[in-house]
Formats: sequence, C-alpha cells, structure tokens
Amino acid sequence: MTILNTTQTIDESFVQQARTRLDHLTKPQGSLGRLEDIAAWVCGWQRTLTPRTHNAHTLIFAGNHGVAAQGVSAFPAEVTAQMVDNFSRGGAAINQLCQAVPSSLHVIPLMLETPTQDFSTAPAMNESECADAFNTGANAVPKDADIVIIGEMGIANTTSAAALAYGLFGGHAALWVGRGTGIDDARLTHKCDVVEKAYALHAAYLGSTMALLSRLGGREMAAMAGAVARARDLRIPVILDGYVATAAAATLTRDHPAALAHCISGHVSAEPGHRLLLEKLDMLPLLQLNMRLGEGSGAQIALAIVRASIAAFTGMATFESASVSGKHDEP
Amino acid sequence: MTILNTTQTIDESFVQQARTRLDHLTKPQGSLGRLEDIAAWVCGWQRTLTPRTHNAHTLIFAGNHGVAAQGVSAFPAEVTAQMVDNFSRGGAAINQLCQAVPSSLHVIPLMLETPTQDFSTAPAMNESECADAFNTGANAVPKDADIVIIGEMGIANTTSAAALAYGLFGGHAALWVGRGTGIDDARLTHKCDVVEKAYALHAAYLGSTMALLSRLGGREMAAMAGAVARARDLRIPVILDGYVATAAAATLTRDHPAALAHCISGHVSAEPGHRLLLEKLDMLPLLQLNMRLGEGSGAQIALAIVRASIAAFTGMATFESASVSGKHDEP
Repeated sequence: MTILNTTQTIDESFVQQARTRLDHLTKPQGSLGRLEDIAAWVCGWQRTLTPRTHNAHTLIFAGNHGVAAQGVSAFPAEVTAQMVDNFSRGGAAINQLCQAVPSSLHVIPLMLETPTQDFSTAPAMNESECADAFNTGANAVPKDADIVIIGEMGIANTTSAAALAYGLFGGHAALWVGRGTGIDDARLTHKCDVVEKAYALHAAYLGSTMALLSRLGGREMAAMAGAVARARDLRIPVILDGYVATAAAATLTRDHPAALAHCISGHVSAEPGHRLLLEKLDMLPLLQLNMRLGEGSGAQIALAIVRASIAAFTGMATFESASVSGKHDEP
Repeated sequence: MTILNTTQTIDESFVQQARTRLDHLTKPQGSLGRLEDIAAWVCGWQRTLTPRTHNAHTLIFAGNHGVAAQGVSAFPAEVTAQMVDNFSRGGAAINQLCQAVPSSLHVIPLMLETPTQDFSTAPAMNESECADAFNTGANAVPKDADIVIIGEMGIANTTSAAALAYGLFGGHAALWVGRGTGIDDARLTHKCDVVEKAYALHAAYLGSTMALLSRLGGREMAAMAGAVARARDLRIPVILDGYVATAAAATLTRDHPAALAHCISGHVSAEPGHRLLLEKLDMLPLLQLNMRLGEGSGAQIALAIVRASIAAFTGMATFESASVSGKHDEP
C-alpha cells in the first residue's frame, strides 16, 4: 500500500508570483505578516493566483482505544459514541464553530464498538485493520475541497498521541504526556507509566508510518493520517487541529520527512506535548488560545485567518490602480 | 469635559452565570481556553446570557501629523488621504477583511488638510482641538453596536504612539520606537531622536489623558480615545487593533487605571513597542501574526475569534441535554 504520494509538491512559481502581487498591494511590503505567507502558500498548492477557500470541509474522525481500559482518561470510553451522537444533533462545539466559520462538517466514526487493542500490552491494530482505517480517512476527503480541516474525537487518544510523538521523536514519556480532558496528578503519573510501558514494548519496531500507526495509533489516528495523505495527492491545503491530529499526521514524516508541507498548524493546544511536537515538526501554529478540546475546534477558528489572508490577497488594490504613493526611496 | 465615565463596569453576576453555563456544556471544563474567558467577558459587559456580536462596527480614524515633516516615516504624508480614498473605493486590506469577517466599516478622516503641530517642537494640538477630535470619535460609536473594532490610518502615527507610550510608562525612546511602515536604520535612529526630543519637551506636563493626547497625540489618536470612552459608557466591548490604537486607548488609563476593562487586544503587532505596551497594560493579545499594517486589520481578524466564542457559548448542548456522561469522579 502506498502511504503517501510525494510527487505532489508546492509550485514555487505560483508562490513567487503571489509574492510579487503581495508586494504591489496597497500596504507596506510585508505588513500583513503571516497572512502574506499563508496566501502565497495556498497559491502554491492550488497552483493559481485566484486561490479559493470557500469550499472548506471539516473532517472529524472518531475512534475508541483499548488503552482507555487502563484508566488514562478523565472520561469513560462511552463518551466517544455519545459525542458522535452529539455531533449529529448539532450540540457540540465544532457544530457551532462550523457555522461561525462556515465549513461542511463530516463526522466519520470508525468501528466505535470495536476498540483497538491496549497498546501498552500489544499492537493496537494489525496492519490490515490499520490500512482499512487509513483508507477510510483517505476516502473521506472530497476531491473538490478547497481546504480541509482535520480533527478528532476519541476517549484516551491523547495517550495515543503521546505514544506516537514519543515513538517519533524520543525523549521520555513525561515530555509527551499531558492532562488531556483534565486528569488529576495520580492519573497523570499513571498515564506516563502506561506510555513508557508502550514505548518499551514497541520502540524497536517503529521504522515506518504504518508501524507507528498500527502499534501505537488508533483507528481515528490512522484515518487522519490517510486524510492528510490523500489531501496531499489532491494538492489540497490542510489545517491540522491540536495534539492528537498533529501526532497522527506526524507519523507520515517517518516515511517522508516533508510529508506535511501542505499542512498548517491551526493552533497550539494547552497540552505541553503539542508545543514540543510542533517545534520538532518546525510548524508555527496560527493560534494560541489555550484550547484543549479537539474536534477540530482550534483549526476551525484558524480557517478564519486563512480566509482573511485570501480575501486580502484577492481583493486589495495595487498602489498603481489606487494611485497611492510609494515609499520615499521609490519611484 | 468628562473624558471617561467609569460608572459602567462589568457585571460580575453575568460573568459568573456565564461561567456556570460554560461548565455544563458538552466539553471538558475549561477546554475552550480563552474562548471561555471571552464569552464570559462579553456576557458581563452586555449584561446578558444571550450575547451578540452580529452588529459589529469597525471604526477607522485617519489623521495627519506635523511630526511627519521630520522624516520619521517611510511614506510621504499625502498617503494618509490617498488611503482614505482607497478605503472609500474598497481597495484596502480592511475593506476585504470587513467582508471576510463581516462588519460595518466606517472611515472617519479628521481634518487631513490640517496636520497637527510637530510635537517635537510644540504641543500637537491645543485642548480645544483635542476635545473636538475626541468628541468626533465618541460620536462615531453607534449606540446599537454589539461590538466595536478600533483602528487607524495616519502617516507618522507610530511616532505619536511611541511618544504616548513613553509618556505613559517611561523608559527611553528606543524601547518604544519601531520601524512602522518599514523605515531603514538611519530613519529609525532619527525617529528615536525625535521621540526623545518630544519627551524632553513635554514630560513635565503629561499628568492627564487630555495632556497626553493634546501634546503627543494627533487627531485620530484623540478620536480613538473618544470612541473607546464612549463605548465604555454604552457597555459595548471593544477590540483594539495594533500599536497605534492601543497607545491612543492607553492614554485613558492616566485618568482611570481600569479604563480599558471593556477592551480586548486583537493582536500584537510586529512593532516591539506594542508588545511592551500590552505587557504594561496587562493585556493578552488574541493573535500574533506579525502584522504591522494598522487599519484595524489585526482586530478585524480577532473578531472572528470573539464570534466563535459566542457561537460556542450560545449554541452548544449541555451534558444533561445531550445525555453525555461526565467525568469518572462525577455523578
């Protein structure tokens, strides 16, 4: 199975043409800061100087984790399915955020009635199960999407995120483990022990994206990786949500270091491991709002920033067209 | 003249009721991070549990500065009026941003043909001129606004912002002076000298908001202070834009330390003085995008965050209504 087709890359000629246009718009050069970088990046991936972000799709993958039985979460595992119901009835944060920052919301539950194995004692999935979840994620990406937001729901999946980040970048469990939905000190210590045990069990076998996802991931983790990979193949820019989505996507870098070139980090969450993971990935988050909800919530808000950058890029006048004088030292 | 009526304060009972509602919504407590703080803050100022941000107004004040003749800006002074024309034709960044994050845009030019005096040699304005500009700003605030965004345009006004911040918080000019629209090292050194000279001239007479604004301000600076003061009187939450808008608003704290309790910082700009000013004011910016354009541009994008927080607060289900289980240690 092909995990990631890296033949699709950013088109630097469109990036450069976008930069040239930005330098002629009625503002001091560079004064829109990161908005300029984002606009040029979207132009480069979409291969156009008329970039679009109207047709946005928010993909929320949900999965259940065997490791939840270890008591690593503040909430019982049944909450995953209950929240999927809540999404379908419009009661969750992401439902509201997809109205506030318009986007089509797709919730994709992955065999919630069949949790993965407890990865502190065995691989979470076999490769066939993992590939199925990966392909489900890949197939969830609409071909005509202008931009995709990737998020998740899954009780105990910050434990999986911590294990994956540890497996990718080493260190020790305490660097990567956080309080997730809000565990107390005792559970935090236990969660660290569980992740340390899982690492010891699997560390020798984590040489590929597939190995990481099948041993330490979960179905929604594999699906997110699959969606990110498919978006790359379709040259669709991606906004990653928090720690869990970023860790899932990061597994792609094991096979291809530049696998996330078409992704931007929507926000840095309150989980300390997320900040470290973004540093390791050399990704600068758009927002820093101390959020720790998941569901794509931080990335969904970041879509507003991406849209703002595209609106400025597309609609602003140039110095010439608006008859605005340039700098003193310019003609 | 009454600068600021501080009888209007946040209603803590609505803040507490909002916090209680937030704790019952289908998310781990506190997991929306700053979105929760923002929602409670808007509820407190609007005195409601059904907060609104639909009717947003973006007020951009424009003024010309005598100190521009000192060569402190990269752009000629004529650009202020040219950009006001550009705003009216829809060609500027803020026009696009007010479509991307919907808001009514009002551009208020203040006697552009009559620059203030060069404050490095004399007070910028007399108190009557300053009061006129202040009142123009106050009268620009629509009584029925749900939320107001404050921004500006004015060649050389980062020089005024630096002088005001220096006048408010001391230190030395180099702490407060930045490159504005993009000046080179030689102009930066000169800009520091000009601000140092202005400070030396006026420092003994900066005991009030009016003194700060009339001596070191400009018409758009006084107008922004007036708009912020009027919004307080109307209990309308305000999003401040960058260095210049924040410095203008900050002058209100000379008369009343808590004058900006109804204001939030939309973003921290690339001007190093802005970061320091926000620290002095104990304000945490919503965005950090390395922008340095003014025009309300950063605050306009921040409106999307405020709206997202209100959408989540207003529309989410509670654990009870959605039949979602609580934490392990809860009934």
